[in-house]
Amino acid sequence: MNPAVERSLARIAEREPEVQAWQVVDANARGDGIPIGVKDLIDTADLPTSCGSPIYRGHRPSRDAACVAALKRAGQVILGKTVTTEFAVYSPGKTRNPRDAKRTPGGSSSGSAAAVADGMVPAALGTQTAASIVRPASFCGCIGWKPTYGTFSMEGIHPLAPSLDTLGFFVRDLDLVSPLYAALSGKPLPPASLKPRIALCRTETWEKAEPSTRDAIERFARPYPEVELSAGLVDAQIAIMGAEAAISLGSQPQAELSAKLRAFLDAGRAVAPGQLQVAHERAQRGRREIDAIFETYDALITIAASGEAPIGLESTGDPLYSRIWSLLGTPCASLPLLKGPAGLPLGVQVVGPRGRDDVLLAAARSLMS
Amino acid sequence: MNPAVERSLARIAEREPEVQAWQVVDANARGDGIPIGVKDLIDTADLPTSCGSPIYRGHRPSRDAACVAALKRAGQVILGKTVTTEFAVYSPGKTRNPRDAKRTPGGSSSGSAAAVADGMVPAALGTQTAASIVRPASFCGCIGWKPTYGTFSMEGIHPLAPSLDTLGFFVRDLDLVSPLYAALSGKPLPPASLKPRIALCRTETWEKAEPSTRDAIERFARPYPEVELSAGLVDAQIAIMGAEAAISLGSQPQAELSAKLRAFLDAGRAVAPGQLQVAHERAQRGRREIDAIFETYDALITIAASGEAPIGLESTGDPLYSRIWSLLGTPCASLPLLKGPAGLPLGVQVVGPRGRDDVLLAAARSLMS
Repeated sequence: MNPAVERSLARIAEREPEVQAWQVVDANARGDGIPIGVKDLIDTADLPTSCGSPIYRGHRPSRDAACVAALKRAGQVILGKTVTTEFAVYSPGKTRNPRDAKRTPGGSSSGSAAAVADGMVPAALGTQTAASIVRPASFCGCIGWKPTYGTFSMEGIHPLAPSLDTLGFFVRDLDLVSPLYAALSGKPLPPASLKPRIALCRTETWEKAEPSTRDAIERFARPYPEVELSAGLVDAQIAIMGAEAAISLGSQPQAELSAKLRAFLDAGRAVAPGQLQVAHERAQRGRREIDAIFETYDALITIAASGEAPIGLESTGDPLYSRIWSLLGTPCASLPLLKGPAGLPLGVQVVGPRGRDDVLLAAARSLMS
Repeated sequence: MNPAVERSLARIAEREPEVQAWQVVDANARGDGIPIGVKDLIDTADLPTSCGSPIYRGHRPSRDAACVAALKRAGQVILGKTVTTEFAVYSPGKTRNPRDAKRTPGGSSSGSAAAVADGMVPAALGTQTAASIVRPASFCGCIGWKPTYGTFSMEGIHPLAPSLDTLGFFVRDLDLVSPLYAALSGKPLPPASLKPRIALCRTETWEKAEPSTRDAIERFARPYPEVELSAGLVDAQIAIMGAEAAISLGSQPQAELSAKLRAFLDAGRAVAPGQLQVAHERAQRGRREIDAIFETYDALITIAASGEAPIGLESTGDPLYSRIWSLLGTPCASLPLLKGPAGLPLGVQVVGPRGRDDVLLAAARSLMS
């Protein structure tokens, strides 16, 4: 057996009873490539796909999603399906934070973040619509990578808010970013060689984060200048996400959705058409503004999550700190560079120019070196 | 057997050898509802789903798309799958125009339009990204209905350009619009009772249409005032559609795509990020402009297609005349109200305010009465 697969299976056998990152593990997985976990929102022909909902319990897609097929063609090994919150929204699955089982791993890509951070697999696929890659990466202590919006095909992934939904991944080692990017996009990610010009961007969310997090990010960003981004983007993201989710999930049998999800969809249905138009215009102005900022800088540093993973498993934490970047479509990553007051991981979110994941990678390398 | 299903099967038996609208017919279809054709881009658990591509030949999805499940819950009968062009882009399927087998039925929802126009089924599902409902409806001579963008769930429908892709349908009778809308959206379409204020909107595409079509639309619109819509929307739609399609179809094995589709995807890959940003901004300005126009008017009349269905089956005709409305997200319909010089159908495209399919329906009723 491929020693990497063997190591993964051994680690899962040891740790899964506590972490509960997996919906299903393929103990017969074969191949010479990297063992990869796949968020259980993504279709796999060989393994069931539950979308974190009883509605899809035992559902067996007849085809692999485009991303799964692409990974297989690149020789990688699909080791199993990782736990997602219900349809990638708020209601948590069973997964616990691998650093402290009393705490949430974050969501919605809970199992993928936990499995990678815990050493069960070197890489796992996740998706982000608000903060579903960056926040669990920050909470669990691994790298979470959300590429530029529209980089990888979303075919075969249950839609939530199509104008925001982005496929990405979790890794522990930045060296895996390029091969995964190339396999999933069909395009190489050429190594950008630059001394990145970095700035701090507090954004409209700054005051809501825990004081210890603001202090830690300020200390980390002390060498860098600061840039401002106008407010209003969070509300725009919330309106667009809610309105689109109400359509995407509106035809599911509503009685089989959790009360939390039903309330979220009701809020989405209440977004008026005029409000949605204003939100889209706000987003376009924001994209223009961020493009201009990236004429001067290569990467921005900002908060990844309010603080360490909160205690309790009934919520996956606040997605506030990534809504802006999900809306703008910029590539962003959470890098496991800091610790919080309890000694648990705290990510640094780094944001790059749209379409320039190579520049973001160069900046991430420089920050992690 | 349900007499409606019986009538459908008899008509298909008689006409299918000439029209070739169907990928597969379910001769065992049962139920008391309306027999409905489903574009073969849309997942069905009971019938294969080929997406018009050899890559998906014999593909058997394990779940119904959200729209198919919703129709079944509403008691309707899925009679079979109708021919689509390759992945809903340009390469035609086998279908012929039911009014003249030497002519194209239009595309990409070729089989759905032909089947409804020919009386094989009272209704069929289609999708539109550029003009894939309005143009075949005009060419075949039935009603094509594209609702407001984002009205029905796209889950289980192969994506082409997600920010434009819209599920809609073909019918011969406007009375079917409300029940289909209600079944697919889960919301009633309350009857708007108004004397619609209608205007002619030539748009930037006007001069490209055949002179006989311009004359016919002008004559038809003689009672109505005229409004102007700024130019630039066609190019914006082309850029967005191309760039998004290059992602959606980029992970398909490229060697198994037609040369026509590969060239289309290459053009999409060549859209620069800055160009895409400009296109999205142009679209938002256009949406604001059209919203303002609809403060004064309830519906606009415009060209549905350059002319009658062209002779030849190697192309499905020019999608130019619906690109603007697909981009703006307005509901629109092609109404079979005119004839061209050869005595073949020519649709009148009528466009309504975003989110107000009820107003469009009232306008369509008034124009068809």
